[in-house]
Amino acid sequence: MSVDKVTTGHMRPDGSEASSGSFPHPLDQLSISEANLARQAILTARGTAVTIHFRSIFLEEPPKKELSKFLDLEHSGRVTAQTPRPARLAKVQYDVVRGDKNHEYTESCVDVVSRKEVQKRIVDKVHHASLTTHEFKAFSEACIASPLYKKAIAEFDLPDGFVVTIDPWPYGGDGKTVPRYTQGLCFARDTRSGNEDSNHYPYPLPIIPVMDTYSHEIVRIDRLATGGKEDGLAYGTHKKNVLDHCSPGEYIPEMLSQPLRTDVKPLNVVQPDGPSFQVNGNLIEWQKWRFRVGFSPREGATLHDVHYDGRSVLYRLSLSEMTVPYGDPRPPFHRKQAFDFGDAGAGRAANNLSLGCDCLGVIKYFDAVLTEPDGTASLAENVICLHEQDNGIGWKHTNYRTQRAVVTRLRELVVQFIITLANYEYIFAYKFDQAGGITIETRATGIVSVVNIDPGKMSPWGNVVSSGALAQNHQHLFCVRIDPAVDGHKNTVVAEESLPMPLSKELNPYGSGYEVRQTPIKTSQFFDASPMTNLTVKMTNPSKLNPVSGKPVSYKFIPTASQLMLAHPESIMAKRAQFAQHHIWITKHKDNEFWAGGEFTNQSSTETDGVADAVARQENVENEDVVVWNTFGLTHNPRTEDWPVMPADFFIANPAIDVPGVKDMASQLAPGDKACCGGVEVQKAPESHMQGTGPDLDPKSKL
Amino acid sequence: MSVDKVTTGHMRPDGSEASSGSFPHPLDQLSISEANLARQAILTARGTAVTIHFRSIFLEEPPKKELSKFLDLEHSGRVTAQTPRPARLAKVQYDVVRGDKNHEYTESCVDVVSRKEVQKRIVDKVHHASLTTHEFKAFSEACIASPLYKKAIAEFDLPDGFVVTIDPWPYGGDGKTVPRYTQGLCFARDTRSGNEDSNHYPYPLPIIPVMDTYSHEIVRIDRLATGGKEDGLAYGTHKKNVLDHCSPGEYIPEMLSQPLRTDVKPLNVVQPDGPSFQVNGNLIEWQKWRFRVGFSPREGATLHDVHYDGRSVLYRLSLSEMTVPYGDPRPPFHRKQAFDFGDAGAGRAANNLSLGCDCLGVIKYFDAVLTEPDGTASLAENVICLHEQDNGIGWKHTNYRTQRAVVTRLRELVVQFIITLANYEYIFAYKFDQAGGITIETRATGIVSVVNIDPGKMSPWGNVVSSGALAQNHQHLFCVRIDPAVDGHKNTVVAEESLPMPLSKELNPYGSGYEVRQTPIKTSQFFDASPMTNLTVKMTNPSKLNPVSGKPVSYKFIPTASQLMLAHPESIMAKRAQFAQHHIWITKHKDNEFWAGGEFTNQSSTETDGVADAVARQENVENEDVVVWNTFGLTHNPRTEDWPVMPADFFIANPAIDVPGVKDMASQLAPGDKACCGGVEVQKAPESHMQGTGPDLDPKSKL
Repeated sequence: MSVDKVTTGHMRPDGSEASSGSFPHPLDQLSISEANLARQAILTARGTAVTIHFRSIFLEEPPKKELSKFLDLEHSGRVTAQTPRPARLAKVQYDVVRGDKNHEYTESCVDVVSRKEVQKRIVDKVHHASLTTHEFKAFSEACIASPLYKKAIAEFDLPDGFVVTIDPWPYGGDGKTVPRYTQGLCFARDTRSGNEDSNHYPYPLPIIPVMDTYSHEIVRIDRLATGGKEDGLAYGTHKKNVLDHCSPGEYIPEMLSQPLRTDVKPLNVVQPDGPSFQVNGNLIEWQKWRFRVGFSPREGATLHDVHYDGRSVLYRLSLSEMTVPYGDPRPPFHRKQAFDFGDAGAGRAANNLSLGCDCLGVIKYFDAVLTEPDGTASLAENVICLHEQDNGIGWKHTNYRTQRAVVTRLRELVVQFIITLANYEYIFAYKFDQAGGITIETRATGIVSVVNIDPGKMSPWGNVVSSGALAQNHQHLFCVRIDPAVDGHKNTVVAEESLPMPLSKELNPYGSGYEVRQTPIKTSQFFDASPMTNLTVKMTNPSKLNPVSGKPVSYKFIPTASQLMLAHPESIMAKRAQFAQHHIWITKHKDNEFWAGGEFTNQSSTETDGVADAVARQENVENEDVVVWNTFGLTHNPRTEDWPVMPADFFIANPAIDVPGVKDMASQLAPGDKACCGGVEVQKAPESHMQGTGPDLDPKSKL
Repeated sequence: MSVDKVTTGHMRPDGSEASSGSFPHPLDQLSISEANLARQAILTARGTAVTIHFRSIFLEEPPKKELSKFLDLEHSGRVTAQTPRPARLAKVQYDVVRGDKNHEYTESCVDVVSRKEVQKRIVDKVHHASLTTHEFKAFSEACIASPLYKKAIAEFDLPDGFVVTIDPWPYGGDGKTVPRYTQGLCFARDTRSGNEDSNHYPYPLPIIPVMDTYSHEIVRIDRLATGGKEDGLAYGTHKKNVLDHCSPGEYIPEMLSQPLRTDVKPLNVVQPDGPSFQVNGNLIEWQKWRFRVGFSPREGATLHDVHYDGRSVLYRLSLSEMTVPYGDPRPPFHRKQAFDFGDAGAGRAANNLSLGCDCLGVIKYFDAVLTEPDGTASLAENVICLHEQDNGIGWKHTNYRTQRAVVTRLRELVVQFIITLANYEYIFAYKFDQAGGITIETRATGIVSVVNIDPGKMSPWGNVVSSGALAQNHQHLFCVRIDPAVDGHKNTVVAEESLPMPLSKELNPYGSGYEVRQTPIKTSQFFDASPMTNLTVKMTNPSKLNPVSGKPVSYKFIPTASQLMLAHPESIMAKRAQFAQHHIWITKHKDNEFWAGGEFTNQSSTETDGVADAVARQENVENEDVVVWNTFGLTHNPRTEDWPVMPADFFIANPAIDVPGVKDMASQLAPGDKACCGGVEVQKAPESHMQGTGPDLDPKSKL
């Protein structure tokens, strides 16, 4: 399998700017040197009297106005070395530390060309930055050192050879303004095999230590209920030998209790002539598609300046947020709610992908530049993969008179990244197809989150997936941010519904008719998916008509009617994730407004400056620079089959942007697809049909 | 690409019955000789005084009681030559003709061993059998001969070199008991290219001839409106040179106006060691799955006796019906409603599939035995294909402490058939996966149905997809029949919903909890999909508990909330398709009750003995032999991109049967899947983590 691999996280300038090859593209990630320059600038600016705890350093995207101007020049091939470019800015997130109790979370922008800090913001202490790996480390060390924690652990009789293992978690929301806290889920791991990958999750311990993140003090040990349905919210038995009824749940091949399957024969994807795509730095071109791929520590892979056949479709496409509330009403599980983008960061959590498993065929990998605890830049290799795949038949028609069949394959281009959040994995894929469609697919896999349950009990709050291990019911609620630019930035979102018509002698005499009603969205607002009226969200350009249909050109998608937030509207969980209350949010574009759940989700009590606040601005979005947010998700009441590792076969395929409404795309596409069919032998029957009279004598001619 | 192909439609007896190799399996299609024996038996029985017009001859499946007994013996390996077998019956559908005006539609059963007619039923004249190809032919000939039709055509000035082409259609329902009628949609084809595959659909003529199917008389020419929104139901201009404003819409490669794409490089699926499945006659075994594939002229491919890892899952799985009502209120379009299974027959409409286009990899084809107009059996080759495909990552987990990743692929087995109904194509696929899941996927492709529209006009009833061609809005409503046998025939369907809980100091103090409510279905009934409560349909076996969860073993699926029938409830369209009024129907099993829309849909005025009538029996379905029917579909308001051939990228993936609720399946599966990963190189990081303390120093450790 041939592989074309980039060896540096710095994505080189776009080849289309030959005359300015020495400039990074405005959408390139920061290079390692640029990131390190920014770090140094902040150290210099803050001085030696304080300590700096760096969190993240990454590209601050140029304002849309500036970037659009540059991109327009680029598309018209007029970019030269003299072309004015948006300032090249690094966003630096860090704490200014003046002793344990005085951490000042700060965000600065550094111009990496002038090496000057051009912007500084000290964030109100009511907000908490996302968690970093050094905070995790501190948490574990604090537990080891904590008498409180030692005492709690000593209350248990752990089986011989078992050691405690802690998964740090965000503290969640408790509705109060608390100090910066971290909490941890505790398990025990059986070390007797000597295999450090022995699975610890089957052995949950019913305690949660809570740490003051700055002072490193373990301030509290929360006790977890181990009861069943008969115990209500009570703690249950909570016996000393709390793990004696638990059993192993290994998933690594060498520790399995039974042999691996031997009857799966290899299925190889071979591309003898290489891939159909071309990559130049962060620029990807494939089958009339042209776009740039970005990467940020919070969002992971992002797509920019998406064009099809030279026509603009999207300005930016990204995953904005995800929240995972757990449905167990027993405290402190009301604080078991992760915001995996805002609390942790999808980019920071991205896996290093490997050949042949994470994708097949000819694969192009992209690296990313992330930030070490000391603020220096480091390379994360292979965090994004790009590959083609076949998705069955693209289109087919058989002329039943002649039996001639024309059939094509549907080729797809996939931009994929995978994140690990302790027990859980998410697989995110942006999928492009030859028919002008884009799909965002999310798969959830990994290990379900379990808590200890007394022997023989069952619980209304989840399923016992392994003896003593209760997998709690939970939801995954994602929000995708779509910044359309359908033939330009001024677009109007139209909600289209298919509705029944009354019987009417004049208009609907036989009751067979139905109405297709279009409602332009004039003011920023939210609404919900409505499959029973076939609600379709169309992003249209009212100033460009399709020459054939006479209607405005558009892109559409049908929002998935997945269940929204189940937690009570008055609950902290629900207040923290307003974006999870509705499927569709229409807002007017505002620079840096990327976060459906608000910029600061960690320990939030309510969603602040999230998509609900953006909608509340009541701005005009008709023929405007509009942004469409789509919330979707799944309610996951775990099954025993989800143990020890859950199959990804319940995936959400969210047709975030489905099929183009622009005439010339598909009419050029149809034949184009033909080419991919690779020497189909067209069937031709004897000329038995009667000219001009329709059906022939073929026994399989049909309606 | 190696191909294993069967060369006879007769599917041989199951190899597990070595001692009875000479017997066909009770689920084998009729062989050509068996079908011809049945034909002869009917000719003999009816005598020479009458003419017999044969329609179809196919296997009459044994009653469930008899077949189950045989299958149980088979699964326990106790079938011998002496084992009593269900009678081998051929269902023969034919007209007894005594002069043009006296056609008696008759259904007989013939025992092909004794060669005796064992059952005969003369069908009430209120019902009409599905259409056959010789009726199509008669229709076209009748048009040519009809003065009425000639006169109608003469009213048009067709451009030079254009000839009339007719697509016969079922007459549809007009609410009256009419004689057996056939109607036709008329187009003109440009013959000047000399290419007989030049597309005629861009040139619609605004007339519909109606024929008395028995007397072959063209009894009426219906005129079609060509107006736009300004014309309401009025006919519009209807000018003589009705095609002058139409333009070509070619899709065959040699007639395209632009060259084919040249930048799609080959993507080959290679299986060097062959497929992972084994096929013996109609028995298919793959990855712990074991089932039989059947084929009937009405249903196409059907699945039988589906087992996973030696445990019973389904007795029978089939596509039961599909209706396509058109939403144009202008008469006579209230009669534009096809029942593609009941009016035509998916099996009769099945394509002969070809290598490399209809599927990739190593493909196994199955043939079918169909019926010629004279009743003789004929072989339809390659109407079903069987192949494996890769569907991305099956499951993955990375231990963030050691960076060890275990990742598997998700392999699928696909049983596919494709049908052509004049302009339209449907691609049906039963997909099995290694995680115990089954998905039924439907793709719609082909050419949208168009009618003539005056120059420059737009219509509320569809989209102008090509000058002069209005593609009418329509729906596709499918119904899948699921006959479960989860660890036995006595099953209970449970409707499971995830519901919010009120705030309650005792039970839900923080409002974070949600309830999972299970409602067993006791009496036959219907209900609708409910994504906002995450409604899940569980087919459970109440007498078998999952040893780990303590709950009944089950199979589940989440019904797709697709739009139901839009036509007015009082309309003929709606009355003819009661099955399209609700998503889920739960009935008690009854032999030969296969048809959601009733046995006779052709020209029906109302659904008779369909799934609504079965539900109305109000039978007990708790811990009973239950059948689950799932209606789903899509509302298709055509786009210009759907022209000239629509891409199949808007497909319905109906997770008809999703993931198993039976403990030992997945726990054996997880490791099994691993094997398919073919030499994944597991990543192992330096042993930097601190034993028993949780997170390590890896900069990418995360929540």
